[in-house]
Amino acid sequence: MWNESEMTTENSTISNAITRILSEHEQLFSRIQLENLDDVVQSLHDANRIFLIGAGRTGFMIKAAAMRLMHLGYTVYVVGETNTPAISNGDLLLAASGSGTTGSIVKAAETARKSGAAVISFSTNQDAPLAQLAQHSVIIPAAGKQEFHTSISAQYAGSLFEQSFLILFDGLVHFLWKKSKTSPEELWTRHANME
Amino acid sequence: MWNESEMTTENSTISNAITRILSEHEQLFSRIQLENLDDVVQSLHDANRIFLIGAGRTGFMIKAAAMRLMHLGYTVYVVGETNTPAISNGDLLLAASGSGTTGSIVKAAETARKSGAAVISFSTNQDAPLAQLAQHSVIIPAAGKQEFHTSISAQYAGSLFEQSFLILFDGLVHFLWKKSKTSPEELWTRHANME
Amino acid sequence: MWNESEMTTENSTISNAITRILSEHEQLFSRIQLENLDDVVQSLHDANRIFLIGAGRTGFMIKAAAMRLMHLGYTVYVVGETNTPAISNGDLLLAASGSGTTGSIVKAAETARKSGAAVISFSTNQDAPLAQLAQHSVIIPAAGKQEFHTSISAQYAGSLFEQSFLILFDGLVHFLWKKSKTSPEELWTRHANME
Amino acid sequence: MWNESEMTTENSTISNAITRILSEHEQLFSRIQLENLDDVVQSLHDANRIFLIGAGRTGFMIKAAAMRLMHLGYTVYVVGETNTPAISNGDLLLAASGSGTTGSIVKAAETARKSGAAVISFSTNQDAPLAQLAQHSVIIPAAGKQEFHTSISAQYAGSLFEQSFLILFDGLVHFLWKKSKTSPEELWTRHANME
Repeated sequence: MWNESEMTTENSTISNAITRILSEHEQLFSRIQLENLDDVVQSLHDANRIFLIGAGRTGFMIKAAAMRLMHLGYTVYVVGETNTPAISNGDLLLAASGSGTTGSIVKAAETARKSGAAVISFSTNQDAPLAQLAQHSVIIPAAGKQEFHTSISAQYAGSLFEQSFLILFDGLVHFLWKKSKTSPEELWTRHANME
Repeated sequence: MWNESEMTTENSTISNAITRILSEHEQLFSRIQLENLDDVVQSLHDANRIFLIGAGRTGFMIKAAAMRLMHLGYTVYVVGETNTPAISNGDLLLAASGSGTTGSIVKAAETARKSGAAVISFSTNQDAPLAQLAQHSVIIPAAGKQEFHTSISAQYAGSLFEQSFLILFDGLVHFLWKKSKTSPEELWTRHANME
Repeated sequence: MWNESEMTTENSTISNAITRILSEHEQLFSRIQLENLDDVVQSLHDANRIFLIGAGRTGFMIKAAAMRLMHLGYTVYVVGETNTPAISNGDLLLAASGSGTTGSIVKAAETARKSGAAVISFSTNQDAPLAQLAQHSVIIPAAGKQEFHTSISAQYAGSLFEQSFLILFDGLVHFLWKKSKTSPEELWTRHANME
Repeated sequence: MWNESEMTTENSTISNAITRILSEHEQLFSRIQLENLDDVVQSLHDANRIFLIGAGRTGFMIKAAAMRLMHLGYTVYVVGETNTPAISNGDLLLAASGSGTTGSIVKAAETARKSGAAVISFSTNQDAPLAQLAQHSVIIPAAGKQEFHTSISAQYAGSLFEQSFLILFDGLVHFLWKKSKTSPEELWTRHANME
């Protein structure tokens, strides 16, 4: 548990701050029901095309996830980028929002559902609109970005959620990669070669 | 011809500035050899996938071009965006640079050629490295963005090139669209529906 | 006026398509009340910071506008980019949407107004929510992007609006630049030097 | 140490993959010389403006870092975004590249140095051109993205570097935040309010 006296010590150096962050992840991942990710694996397999959406820092993590899915050979589009077409029947939307209430993301999830696409959400809160809209919701019980004085994380705003989404998704990517039995050299041929 | 006394008048109001801009386009397009665009039409048709690259404001015009090609049903990727894979044999790179010397774009064109992809360049200068690298080069004889005191354009930096690339490409798009005999309603189904 | 028999001729070549586009602009700009841009000039001058927003191809034109305002020395932020802070009292939002109904843009304009910021809109329709929300609305009477069978433009979707916003704003930029009496070389020192 | 027999077990489930990732971070951070970050703290404090650059997934982590620095009140620009001006004397460039050899990033660092700006690099390799160019180089001894068969990480390509850069920088952010003695509510007023 995090209290004022511990804060003094733990924030006194960057090293202590990082130790604290890694410890938050150890505790957080012990509380995530990772078997729910089996639904994600199945949905990725079944999808015609995969669309991804997130805002702010979560949006950057979503892009990191999208890029790895592309490396693995999936057809992916990030909402808001130039070549992203309309989502439609048979597609899948992966939507991440710590609070599960970000307006543009909830609206996108509604559009996806109306268009016949499946929706998987990643958020901190099962009761939020985004999780309620999704066929499958992955709950990461990190603090929300406006829950400022919580014992779950000492970090500012949604940092723990953003970091843990990246690690969770990269764990999923690792699993998918090993399951595919492809060599890293094979995946490498898909990496952007013009930047 | 543009001189100081004319500048005084033509810049005195926004209306005069716009009249001047439209007049620059009338003169510019009379000097572009549009039959060279037939090669672009053929290359777009032959390409497996189409990659597009541009920097700064030209980069925004390239994205506008890419989005319309997507609406028309082409498979397009903008260099630097999340889902852009490696370019390879059978692909096409459309590269725009007013000067034809922008380092990152010349380098991308070299990579494209080495990978077996075709390259079409859009620039102001046939002698520039980018035009020399390209199989087909479309020359838009607007002022380059560091040719500050030229009679071709009174506008700042590469504005005339950027505007004329947009109009030129939208002319090409219009031609491709009419040739395809598809209704606007059909194209509309491809428009992003989650923003 | 545009009709089927004319279309046959005018679309038969790319050259005819471009001639058609330039002619659409001549007609369009004769119908824009450019004196309304005086309010834009004043608002830009009065603003603490300038925020810009647009979606799709209009969003790319907004970015082109933002980049030139930066070159001129204004403090600008594009909504959705990494370093964009909260808009607040004394700031100005420039919001462009052909239809004036794009959800995310109308919502941003509402937020801007509630935050005490000024809003200037660019759209085709004075009756649309965006124009109604704005203190000053610039009407570009181009066809909206879902007005498919109109006599104003033969082009697909919002192309005429997007092109004309670029030309209009660059006309404004030209006016502001000349008024500032700065040399192009001075402006050039602000151009991004790391891409 | 990671070997084939362990791989079989550790990759059999997503849960095992995440356990593996967290364990890689525990080991990695025990090998980073975090006292070097004191130079980063000082450089951030001294800088006029802070520019950040990264490519691919590292670029997304750089954007996450930039956004938090903005929340903390620093003046930040991401290379390649619309409002990014020229870097100049008194500015600071934070450049991240796992390999330390990415062409566009090395070139940006050279430009920064020539312009009189300071450069801090984040990479896996002290001998790489990027680290050599930088006044201060932070070494994260993760595997490089083309070091495919290493014992440091079982993950694909640069994933460990990308994740650890995020955690490292967020540790730095946490330290800067606590040192500034500002409340989370104060920081929150800077969060983008139009998305």
